Amino acid sequence: MMRGKFIAFEGGEGMGKSTQARLLCDALEKRGITVTSTREPGGTPGAEAIRRLLLDPPGDGWGAEAEALLFAAARADHVARLILPTVDAGGWIVCDRFLDSSRAYQGAAGLLGDKRVRTLHEIGSGSLLPDLTIVIGAGEHEVRKRLKDRDGESSDAIGGRDEAYHSSVNAAFDRFAAEEPDRFVRIDGSGSIEEVHSRVMDAVERLFP
Amino acid sequence: MMRGKFIAFEGGEGMGKSTQARLLCDALEKRGITVTSTREPGGTPGAEAIRRLLLDPPGDGWGAEAEALLFAAARADHVARLILPTVDAGGWIVCDRFLDSSRAYQGAAGLLGDKRVRTLHEIGSGSLLPDLTIVIGAGEHEVRKRLKDRDGESSDAIGGRDEAYHSSVNAAFDRFAAEEPDRFVRIDGSGSIEEVHSRVMDAVERLFP
Repeated sequence: MMRGKFIAFEGGEGMGKSTQARLLCDALEKRGITVTSTREPGGTPGAEAIRRLLLDPPGDGWGAEAEALLFAAARADHVARLILPTVDAGGWIVCDRFLDSSRAYQGAAGLLGDKRVRTLHEIGSGSLLPDLTIVIGAGEHEVRKRLKDRDGESSDAIGGRDEAYHSSVNAAFDRFAAEEPDRFVRIDGSGSIEEVHSRVMDAVERLFP
Repeated sequence: MMRGKFIAFEGGEGMGKSTQARLLCDALEKRGITVTSTREPGGTPGAEAIRRLLLDPPGDGWGAEAEALLFAAARADHVARLILPTVDAGGWIVCDRFLDSSRAYQGAAGLLGDKRVRTLHEIGSGSLLPDLTIVIGAGEHEVRKRLKDRDGESSDAIGGRDEAYHSSVNAAFDRFAAEEPDRFVRIDGSGSIEEVHSRVMDAVERLFP
């Protein structure tokens, strides 16, 4: 049996990742591919329980260290119980956020540093990386506009952080994509949903035999 | 202001740690010391929420990696929000379990290895160690007897594991104490509660000025 593929969508808030992930799943299914759509944090009963703690923290909110450890714990469960078994059985995984979100949010913007985030991923998930990571990006002006449009919509403990934090997140994703061009494709998130979807399909083309 | 002291109790299931921690707190208070009694996993609202996930896991239970990350996350919150602020303000902490429980349960018995557990502690809690760690131990025959006496009482996801697991945990605690005699005092857990308490007080004597 052929191993399936693991595709992750990454990017800041309001970049249309979830919409594009859904459209990609539909397109893959039309090609006869068995595809599982999932997200982080979450995707398994254990990881979804951790997600609730992360987005609605008890007490005074999580410090950077506890937050990064919780993300890594949720990811370890997700990788062991859903992602690896699915891909090993020949299925494809399309995941809304993965390791690079921890690198951007906790590592770069949250000041924990890239090395520590990667060490947690090594311990938790054996350093598993997607076959393809699609970063949906936009210019700084557009990013600011989209964050503003989302105001009120995203009032959870992480989405609700300030503009400087989210600018740092977006800059980090662009940097990751530039640093590892083999693992990432950065897609321009401007234009219509259909235009962006067609850029996504061009990027995914490389995974077909 | 003088820094307070941080004392941890360690040992396998049924060793009387909680009882001895309580008696120690009473004795310290009688000496006019401000003491906070706490436990792991737990001790803060965030860490208690993680405790519930650990002892009653959603889904199929946690793998070794996710479990170790969750313990480290709970500990990071506990250290940052309770232990360090208390000790910095001159208070004493008496904690039922700390890092060495993760080393014994997840590291030794759970096969994650000591190095990875210590790395998680470095990232989560800056490698904070207690001023004194009291291991309450007993011979193998006694350990087996106490585990048996607890049957049914301890049916959570960790306490309920098999005898080989718990034997390995107890052996690990004895090994830790032998390896770092400056940081640990191993106390014989046999005899009456009062006899063990008097051994605890002898061990704590070294912390008084």
